[in-house]
Amino acid sequence: MSKGNLLYAQSGGVTAVINTTACAVIETARKHKAQIGRVYAARNGILGVLREELIDTGLEDKKAIAALRHTPGGAFGSCRYKLKSIEESRAQYERLIAVFKAHNIRYFLYNGGNDSADTALKISQIGAAMNYPIACIGVPKTVDNDLPVTDCSPGFGSVAKYTAISMREAALDVASMCSSSTKVFVMEVMGRHAGWIAAAAGLAARKPGDAPHIILFPEVPFDEEAFLRKVKETVERYGYCCVAVSEGVKQRNGQFLSEVGTVDAFGHSQLGGVGPLIAQLVHAKLGYKFHWAVADYLQRSARHIASKVDAEHAYAVGKAAVEFALAGQNAVMPVITRVADEPYRWIVESAPLDKIANREKKLPRRFLTKDGFGITPSARAYLEPLIRGEDYPPYDKATGLPKYAELDNKLIRKKLPAYIVDKK
Amino acid sequence: MSKGNLLYAQSGGVTAVINTTACAVIETARKHKAQIGRVYAARNGILGVLREELIDTGLEDKKAIAALRHTPGGAFGSCRYKLKSIEESRAQYERLIAVFKAHNIRYFLYNGGNDSADTALKISQIGAAMNYPIACIGVPKTVDNDLPVTDCSPGFGSVAKYTAISMREAALDVASMCSSSTKVFVMEVMGRHAGWIAAAAGLAARKPGDAPHIILFPEVPFDEEAFLRKVKETVERYGYCCVAVSEGVKQRNGQFLSEVGTVDAFGHSQLGGVGPLIAQLVHAKLGYKFHWAVADYLQRSARHIASKVDAEHAYAVGKAAVEFALAGQNAVMPVITRVADEPYRWIVESAPLDKIANREKKLPRRFLTKDGFGITPSARAYLEPLIRGEDYPPYDKATGLPKYAELDNKLIRKKLPAYIVDKK
Repeated sequence: MSKGNLLYAQSGGVTAVINTTACAVIETARKHKAQIGRVYAARNGILGVLREELIDTGLEDKKAIAALRHTPGGAFGSCRYKLKSIEESRAQYERLIAVFKAHNIRYFLYNGGNDSADTALKISQIGAAMNYPIACIGVPKTVDNDLPVTDCSPGFGSVAKYTAISMREAALDVASMCSSSTKVFVMEVMGRHAGWIAAAAGLAARKPGDAPHIILFPEVPFDEEAFLRKVKETVERYGYCCVAVSEGVKQRNGQFLSEVGTVDAFGHSQLGGVGPLIAQLVHAKLGYKFHWAVADYLQRSARHIASKVDAEHAYAVGKAAVEFALAGQNAVMPVITRVADEPYRWIVESAPLDKIANREKKLPRRFLTKDGFGITPSARAYLEPLIRGEDYPPYDKATGLPKYAELDNKLIRKKLPAYIVDKK
Repeated sequence: MSKGNLLYAQSGGVTAVINTTACAVIETARKHKAQIGRVYAARNGILGVLREELIDTGLEDKKAIAALRHTPGGAFGSCRYKLKSIEESRAQYERLIAVFKAHNIRYFLYNGGNDSADTALKISQIGAAMNYPIACIGVPKTVDNDLPVTDCSPGFGSVAKYTAISMREAALDVASMCSSSTKVFVMEVMGRHAGWIAAAAGLAARKPGDAPHIILFPEVPFDEEAFLRKVKETVERYGYCCVAVSEGVKQRNGQFLSEVGTVDAFGHSQLGGVGPLIAQLVHAKLGYKFHWAVADYLQRSARHIASKVDAEHAYAVGKAAVEFALAGQNAVMPVITRVADEPYRWIVESAPLDKIANREKKLPRRFLTKDGFGITPSARAYLEPLIRGEDYPPYDKATGLPKYAELDNKLIRKKLPAYIVDKK
């Protein structure tokens, strides 16, 4: 077999360190020139593969690729596009293989979450069925930390660090004003189905009385009465109350709180978000002055305060993905295996994609306090190592801003007829 | 005159660096033991003075005071409480003087914004009228940057840096997803009457096409039609559009947009905030997928990414405040005077409080582009030096969190009868 080319693609919501993984993939691939020819990146994830929009990363200089290590967002473009089953859209899978063939792509690295693992798995299956040898490697990434098998997902550690620090900082603000101003502060965090980020907010508390005083998880049905009682007790005891609420918190019947509007006059659900809704509920029922924050994309793109451990994970899985592909592995994902909590030690291992695809890892019950409003010492032991160390980007002295990578992203010449991607 | 004691108090909304000023005040006062006896801090600002709740900072060790330099929030408690005129509440002013007398306080340093400058001024007047010699020094602080006379206000540079970085980071996120996901991102920032923070978001843009593509200022009446046209043009040209909106943006008739609800079904105004409102407007009128963020307290407490220049300003005004008081100055404020933009040079000077009290500095028209949606090169020349340098706090290796100061804040024994503070 002649030297094959490698194709890397980013998928789903981006993170503060997905480009760290991209950097590792490209830097590692460049070290194996005997086996790997060109290193391509798909423009906008799998959509770019379907459209034959392939970026030649070989045209970017070493410094630009190195700068990816500390640049948030998805440098080649990501996408939200889930391929259907092979039965339902065989033509799409055949198109992917056609693009691979046209550009002699023998290694396909798909950097994403559960859905992407599923896509990578299916591509490896269709490759085998069509007798086109392709090494498909899923590369883990998600701020939600909901991938199974791997101990944690690159991207999560940084959003966890941002969340814990932001909660602590905002709490210092609230604590200093509460005697005559805001008494309740609500911070909404991401995590539609799993409460890992909400749990990370809990790391801000070091001793009794520290914020966050209450965490609302998607895993725990919202109990309005118990919640309001705890807010009141907290304000009466400490003078203020800080709440971290996951965007995915649900009613007992399973409906998202953000879609329900538990209190009249909440208006359109897309307007609010659950953070303002919870804050308003507290005000309506208890009368406290409140503030709320919704960091939204700020949390998952906060490369300026990325966790060093997270950045190391992100780099390691990118490097391992290339090495696994070169070693002939297929339909696998490099995963983080924790060897010890204290001192924290970890290794990268290979796991089959079919153990990862389409599965969701939620917070285990033992990570939640009995009342469901906080995290336990086990949760802390798990979470704490993931936010250790600060992996600061370099800054430009004149502008005071981080020096983030800017790539040319030149597309290679197409060889196939144009292809129109179906809307989902 | 025997050695006098010094009283420091924090007022109004806190910042990432108000404690840096507190650190400077205490460290400088400790160096002048011949003139200054004890260094007290009022608990919760002027309320603590009225209630005779005075913290003896002499009981805090050197390390704890040094740690204030990098700790956000107000370490001694701040308050929102504006004293009325001397005519309206002479008893309150007399109470303040009584507390000063009881504890031999000869230097009063009040760290706040326009209202606090007014309070400090009035106290110096009542002191003179009551024949009680007291040096009243206002010490500048406000994230809003709306104090006159001073070139900038400590606290602003750090929120400006946070805002510019957050906008750039979120924009990288949006840009990488826009082909198949969010096309419009709206970030709401503080600044109810002056658009300085919104303007700082503009620093994130370095070249044409960079985010933020649109800034909405309180100084420019909201023109829905022009705004929507620009959003559409931007999305069509660049694939996405990022908007920074000041919480204080107003309609042509002067009403806050956040209180109006320009589109039906916006519901309760306290729920929304103008960020979600603008995002929803874009969706309703143009149909684009959107996200929005409201950083709220996160922005003004983000000590983890404080501007070095801002921290230097904050320390310098605290030091100067003590030195001015010792030099016999009264009813003045140390202000930052800009000597040169490039290379940036500044000095601290003394300005009379009556030039500062109750006045608001808005964005000058020459800082705004002709269409009112962006900042000019003059604005950039003014703003850029203020966000230079990163003044990182130290971190705890085990927890991955900043090591913020924790003070004992022990109150001294009261000497006067209890005093009930009127509610505003």
